[in-house]
Amino acid sequence: MSSPTPLGSFAEIRTLIANLPGPDEAARTAARAREPQLTKPAGALGRLEDIAEWLATWQGRHPPSVDQPRVAVFAANHGISTLGVSAYPASVTAEMVKNFVDGGAAINQICRTVNADLRVYEMALDEPTADFTQAAALSETACVQALAYGMMAVEPGVDLLCIGEMGIGNTTAASAVAAALFGGDANDWVGPGTGVDGDRLARKREVVAAGLLRHRDFLSDPLEVLARLGGHELAGIAGAVLAARLAQVPVLLDGFTSTVAAAVLERLKPGLLDHCLVGHLSKEPGHTRVCQHIGKAPILDLSMRLGEGTGAALAIGIVRAAAACHSGMATFTDAGVSGRIS
Amino acid sequence: MSSPTPLGSFAEIRTLIANLPGPDEAARTAARAREPQLTKPAGALGRLEDIAEWLATWQGRHPPSVDQPRVAVFAANHGISTLGVSAYPASVTAEMVKNFVDGGAAINQICRTVNADLRVYEMALDEPTADFTQAAALSETACVQALAYGMMAVEPGVDLLCIGEMGIGNTTAASAVAAALFGGDANDWVGPGTGVDGDRLARKREVVAAGLLRHRDFLSDPLEVLARLGGHELAGIAGAVLAARLAQVPVLLDGFTSTVAAAVLERLKPGLLDHCLVGHLSKEPGHTRVCQHIGKAPILDLSMRLGEGTGAALAIGIVRAAAACHSGMATFTDAGVSGRIS
Repeated sequence: MSSPTPLGSFAEIRTLIANLPGPDEAARTAARAREPQLTKPAGALGRLEDIAEWLATWQGRHPPSVDQPRVAVFAANHGISTLGVSAYPASVTAEMVKNFVDGGAAINQICRTVNADLRVYEMALDEPTADFTQAAALSETACVQALAYGMMAVEPGVDLLCIGEMGIGNTTAASAVAAALFGGDANDWVGPGTGVDGDRLARKREVVAAGLLRHRDFLSDPLEVLARLGGHELAGIAGAVLAARLAQVPVLLDGFTSTVAAAVLERLKPGLLDHCLVGHLSKEPGHTRVCQHIGKAPILDLSMRLGEGTGAALAIGIVRAAAACHSGMATFTDAGVSGRIS
Repeated sequence: MSSPTPLGSFAEIRTLIANLPGPDEAARTAARAREPQLTKPAGALGRLEDIAEWLATWQGRHPPSVDQPRVAVFAANHGISTLGVSAYPASVTAEMVKNFVDGGAAINQICRTVNADLRVYEMALDEPTADFTQAAALSETACVQALAYGMMAVEPGVDLLCIGEMGIGNTTAASAVAAALFGGDANDWVGPGTGVDGDRLARKREVVAAGLLRHRDFLSDPLEVLARLGGHELAGIAGAVLAARLAQVPVLLDGFTSTVAAAVLERLKPGLLDHCLVGHLSKEPGHTRVCQHIGKAPILDLSMRLGEGTGAALAIGIVRAAAACHSGMATFTDAGVSGRIS
């Protein structure tokens, strides 16, 4: 007999991942059977048709619907934020968490307009990760704890989960993680983030390059990449996305940092992100690249680069409309509408 | 003294157009002053920032909001629908109007999800326009009546107007109008519409070419183009867009037919569509081209090609979120969030 998996280890995460539920083929079949009967030319709703089928497949029910969407924002601080990589001081992470709680941020306004529940997961803001140019950002234990914490975002009743983040310095961490997962160097992955340029952008590239060099012997395992170069909120996101897969909750990813954090899972097991779509294409240049690596075309493209889950939350409206069309439209027979001539 | 403008003539329309309200510079200035104070990096909401400023400018108030959006769907029939240009029989126009009234169409479901008022304007479905390969589709009087009818879509309280249409054969009419307005021939503007190909697509091109040839001596005036090659719903759309400008109601255009109908106004007076955005990019190939001609980048791109106002209605969610962020977010000062380091 093998010994039991130690609690709080990467081995435990690997066991979870080995036993994930797949797509619900009955729901998918039902969606495919209904779609051609709806009162519209075949294919005329374009991407909405694909989204409805995806939603049914990963909610594991037909007809699909979006009744209780949740936006989960993971907030954390980074050791590397002291190295001059951001346009804002690290204190802004906590200040923005307060702004979320007080209802003053962009994500609060968007959640109101799409009728989504907003939850903010504050992850030890006064205990930033270690500076990854000097040591692993997180220990294995701390990383697994953050993954487990993130899993709490998936609660009964939630039928669509949007992922967001807040953390001064986290596009630097995400750039390092992306380079470690997908190859390329700091120049390929580092972008302006909150809006750095010139010397500060050069510094950001140097920090990412130093992190990749420091941990170069440990980067073949995506979980080691997440711990050594990532951060609390990146691990929390990976946990939430994993829990969503286990609970049959489809996911909308947001921008660069969220998508990179989720991509850790895709590198652990190809197809693990099949229950996820990318809500929008961020203006952060690395986002295009990571979306290509995980094979996902973002739903919206509005030149946004804010994070907080804003792009994912905006896409709720599109996903809800896709479900409503698929589930609520009359069929040709029901409505007495004539079919094609030829 | 000049004689009074005869009622129901193109001259009356030209008089209206000569005296349009411009942008509200005070609202625009207020929007530009507020935007940089909001708790986000400058520019991080991308296109949402531009949309909020546009909305304030053309609603003529600051802060802007979207509280009573309306989707106006204009439905009509076309003489050329008997010539084999569509995949569906002309009876489908009335059948789909009944489907709208019964709540079974795609636009009904989308309006529910975005909390928009849906109005269907049925335009003499049992009196299709004349076959434009043989005569003018509409007389001047009938065209002006349709324009005036369309103006009724703008009622007090409506603060965002979405344009939609339904009419078997109307992408054929729109292709002819577009070619007359912007140049190029039938091959440049004709696409699959509801999904024609092969012989039927070739027939559609022949019909457009025949219409352009028949009316070639009268196509320098956009209103003549609208009457001779357009149809009731295209004229209704032009009327609604014009009335919206007069009433300070911003407009979201939908796909190919809606945008071409509105483009008649832009050709009459450049800038007349400054109060309009294009809600989505249709899969109908001519839509890309007409958007380029009127200088507008669609908000969404979801490979849809249904009409009914579906793409415009979906974009309500984006415009509403833009207004909510602009109007509802805390400022750096109010929220006590630190500004940029450099």
